[in-house]
Amino acid sequence: MIQVAINGYGTIGKRVADAVRAQPDMEVLGVAKTRPNFEAETAIDKGFPLYAAIEEREHLFEEAGLDIAGSVDELVADADVVVDATPSGIGAENKSLYEEYETPALYQGGEDADLVGVSFNARSNFEDAAEADHVRVVSCNTTGLSRVIAPLREEYGVEKVRATLVRRGGDPGQTSRGPINDILPNPVTIPSHHGPDVETIFDDLDIDTLGMKVPATLMHMHSLNVTLEEEVDAADVRELFADESRLFLIPEHMAIDGSGKLKEYALDAGRPRGDVWENAIWEESISTVGRDLYLFQGIHQESDVVPENIDAIRAVLGAADAEESIETTDETLGIGL
Amino acid sequence: MIQVAINGYGTIGKRVADAVRAQPDMEVLGVAKTRPNFEAETAIDKGFPLYAAIEEREHLFEEAGLDIAGSVDELVADADVVVDATPSGIGAENKSLYEEYETPALYQGGEDADLVGVSFNARSNFEDAAEADHVRVVSCNTTGLSRVIAPLREEYGVEKVRATLVRRGGDPGQTSRGPINDILPNPVTIPSHHGPDVETIFDDLDIDTLGMKVPATLMHMHSLNVTLEEEVDAADVRELFADESRLFLIPEHMAIDGSGKLKEYALDAGRPRGDVWENAIWEESISTVGRDLYLFQGIHQESDVVPENIDAIRAVLGAADAEESIETTDETLGIGL
Repeated sequence: MIQVAINGYGTIGKRVADAVRAQPDMEVLGVAKTRPNFEAETAIDKGFPLYAAIEEREHLFEEAGLDIAGSVDELVADADVVVDATPSGIGAENKSLYEEYETPALYQGGEDADLVGVSFNARSNFEDAAEADHVRVVSCNTTGLSRVIAPLREEYGVEKVRATLVRRGGDPGQTSRGPINDILPNPVTIPSHHGPDVETIFDDLDIDTLGMKVPATLMHMHSLNVTLEEEVDAADVRELFADESRLFLIPEHMAIDGSGKLKEYALDAGRPRGDVWENAIWEESISTVGRDLYLFQGIHQESDVVPENIDAIRAVLGAADAEESIETTDETLGIGL
Repeated sequence: MIQVAINGYGTIGKRVADAVRAQPDMEVLGVAKTRPNFEAETAIDKGFPLYAAIEEREHLFEEAGLDIAGSVDELVADADVVVDATPSGIGAENKSLYEEYETPALYQGGEDADLVGVSFNARSNFEDAAEADHVRVVSCNTTGLSRVIAPLREEYGVEKVRATLVRRGGDPGQTSRGPINDILPNPVTIPSHHGPDVETIFDDLDIDTLGMKVPATLMHMHSLNVTLEEEVDAADVRELFADESRLFLIPEHMAIDGSGKLKEYALDAGRPRGDVWENAIWEESISTVGRDLYLFQGIHQESDVVPENIDAIRAVLGAADAEESIETTDETLGIGL
């Protein structure tokens, strides 16, 4: 069994922990957290050994009545692999710790691409991670873009991608973030970082991205344009996408008009936390005008990278090939709405 | 003096009435309204003769203590021109009334393009209105797109336009509209009506548009891509736009990050209702990648068509040429932030 340490038990970390537990070939060795908040409480309730990410704060956990299994150093030393799910920039600070104990590590998309040699998306470049000890699982938006671009490149060739990313202002729990009643070009300058980030997956891709922020918390929404190398029927693209397990085509009859109903559907379906691990593509939106393909897709910022982290664990340890890993991950999590 | 009747005294009508009053060559003959609400009260306070748009409802105005100058038939009969600013679809119903009295009429962008022979944007096709008695002033979004496309076509030639329109859910007063905390592809199908609508102004233009709705009320935001016929420096595009009176380039030093601060700036500047009649283009966002031009622009849905209605009055009556009319309108309203 692969012993997985999870450093950072917030939005991503707690979901990765549950996903690891669901795998037949892995177990959660422990999770590390900086503060004894509600998530720390839940970790204990679930039986995940809890480690203090910062030694000086151990007493805060004790005062809150939460048992600490040890220091993060011990956790890293004993693990086969660490998933670093700390806030952006903290992963970079943690890298020397992982190197000290020679524990392979996965970082999240908020870290700079040049922190590590390999940026990872399971569908697009699984094999690249086999040669690296430090791998970055790209961000939710980059994951969402890569999953769509990969099959299009293989099937038709892609001349250029142009995407407008209408981003949620914050996650549901991020009460300090905005905007309220506003639409912000964000960043105002073009391109946003997303285009160059997708190029860490496809290094020869021509892509321009524009970002905005709006007063919503549930999901991001992409307005995507892909100029293909040949003219294609929209129906063919729908068929191509239907074969991709991590692309969910929302059928018209479901009458899902936005991210609110989509999340409600995921909750109704009994998914943990109402997670939508797949790109949610509105089937009716898939359109072609000459070589220009257009579509809308919802990207659940809290969860679409979770299966990618699971696959990255296997990739970096050489524990499975892409097909085998993706199939196991999808089956155990229940991916494929 | 051109005698102007305004049928419909809501978001657009009340602004057009104020703008007509500010012109040296026009006056407001009267405004017609269906209900004695706060706007009817303000019309009386401003000294605009108030007409009942629906005869059977005259008693409601009397009961509210508001004096009615007469019926909408009398208003239309006496006017040189009618600006129909009624809700979408009602303009079409009113057309026969205007024809009955042979009064030239302007309609708003919510009406079908085929209701009339000519769709109008002052910067793009002023002269076309001279030969028509019934003219449609295109919608706020189509106006915003046309104003940018016209100079680009003239200067560089346009191969293709792709735009994502992130639209406010409703105007500040539209309390029944949504969404709350959501991002809706709207319409889900592609293209949105905006692209074909822009083609009523430029009939040979290749344009695809995608629409969304978000929980904001202040302005729309466009993520615009124009593939030009030649490679151009972003600095040259900025200079080109700086010469256009109805394009306001937001300088970086103003630190205006979205529509909220933009509206606040317009209010601070003493503009009536904080109206932003110009396209508000973030100067930093104007970027070129090869022949692809990108930018973000805010479109104030309540007011950007107001100067266009004023110009359309002169155009349809042959009272001035484009340059003369636009200059007068801009000067009297204070356009050019």
